[in-house]
Amino acid sequence: MDPLLAFDVKAAKKRCVEFIRRCLADAGLEKVVLGLSGGVDSAVVAALCAEAAGRDNTLALLMPYKTSSPSAIEDAEELARLLGIKTETLEITPVVDAFVALRSDADRVRRGNFAARTRMALLFDTAKRSNALVAGTGNKTEYLLGYFTLFGDGAFSFAPIVWLYKTQVWELARYVGIPQRIVEKKPSADLWPGQTDEGELGITYKEADAILVRLVDRRMSIEDVVAAGFARDKVEHIANLMRQTEFKRRGPRLLGMGDE
Amino acid sequence: MDPLLAFDVKAAKKRCVEFIRRCLADAGLEKVVLGLSGGVDSAVVAALCAEAAGRDNTLALLMPYKTSSPSAIEDAEELARLLGIKTETLEITPVVDAFVALRSDADRVRRGNFAARTRMALLFDTAKRSNALVAGTGNKTEYLLGYFTLFGDGAFSFAPIVWLYKTQVWELARYVGIPQRIVEKKPSADLWPGQTDEGELGITYKEADAILVRLVDRRMSIEDVVAAGFARDKVEHIANLMRQTEFKRRGPRLLGMGDE
Repeated sequence: MDPLLAFDVKAAKKRCVEFIRRCLADAGLEKVVLGLSGGVDSAVVAALCAEAAGRDNTLALLMPYKTSSPSAIEDAEELARLLGIKTETLEITPVVDAFVALRSDADRVRRGNFAARTRMALLFDTAKRSNALVAGTGNKTEYLLGYFTLFGDGAFSFAPIVWLYKTQVWELARYVGIPQRIVEKKPSADLWPGQTDEGELGITYKEADAILVRLVDRRMSIEDVVAAGFARDKVEHIANLMRQTEFKRRGPRLLGMGDE
Repeated sequence: MDPLLAFDVKAAKKRCVEFIRRCLADAGLEKVVLGLSGGVDSAVVAALCAEAAGRDNTLALLMPYKTSSPSAIEDAEELARLLGIKTETLEITPVVDAFVALRSDADRVRRGNFAARTRMALLFDTAKRSNALVAGTGNKTEYLLGYFTLFGDGAFSFAPIVWLYKTQVWELARYVGIPQRIVEKKPSADLWPGQTDEGELGITYKEADAILVRLVDRRMSIEDVVAAGFARDKVEHIANLMRQTEFKRRGPRLLGMGDE
């Protein structure tokens, strides 16, 4: 791992667990619900919630679409058994297909947004039904690159691992005992068959994290990062992704509130 | 109107229009999309967007559910004709009913949340398709009382009238020429037949606004507002609604960002 990404994994876990407990205490609630995809991010968040809230207070929703890979669902189910948390399976295909019927020109990215927003609506409905908070599962790499659906997977009550880069989440996953198969699988939003995050982002997480930690945490300029030995086209690609997706992190603008 | 709610309606309109233009300029975009319900808030926002962005750059989505009142749809269509803006009608019943089929225990509030989030997903899909921003239509009364669906009608790119109380929106509506029938109809989220905002909130907008402007803008205590002649049960009801819905205005909590 890049030296700038080195971190104390034990302290990181503690920080996440304490944050989850604080969010629950502040809300006066005991329960957490999250979407479990079979990927490493939601697996880690599930493990953290099970520890912070208790496994009886942690509910995982499995929300496959018709094109979701069967192995992802199996991995999610196996993880839930391992953690001893409850699951509920909601097949989102009828909802997403009803959206797509209204918007038949939608390409796969827009269809993916419908899937992500459908899952958000089901998570928050569950939260309302069960007096729970919704745990977000995004990491810092996705957050900075804007690799999430606004008001879809970008909507949650609290986000415990959004301060950790993807390569750090992998290390935390091993530390908390997530099965090797989940940690080592190719990251994918699984929004269409064959999708991989790294293919879509046009860069590996290892490269992206090394560039991001320099641009963001070390506040280095593009030129400085290039001078430090990183390929110019990759550094510029990362900087462009951050700039183009700034509106997603900024959030809605309300006239008369704060700086407007 | 309560003297504390008196405002310069001409200047208020100018402030809204300039804000919309600034939001578009900052985003490098020209178009706006909004949901038009037939109610006064979305009517005012449509008129403001038509002026700020131009009527050819303003698209109104009409998104009725099977229980929506036909007169609301007619009012929305008439207003769009009057303003000269384009409309698209998307019947959301198949989507909402597919949600409800997954959650057959959902009461009418939870069903209303599914409807609001379905409309959000269609608005943001339209924004992506058409390179547009999504205009929010909420007012200050709804905002402070938490009378909106988080990540439903509470999700938008910009909110131009969220700094105006409902009673002020009525005045602005008359000023910008919204038809009398729309201004004078009983406010309703139209999420189920016979729903009225004032019935659900348990207080009239006139009373709520007079109490809110004292508690929020004048920073008066509950005791001071009671001493000023307002009924204790109503002042406490308003204060309770604000407190109970604070999480909706606060938004998601991200560990490692800002104050977390």
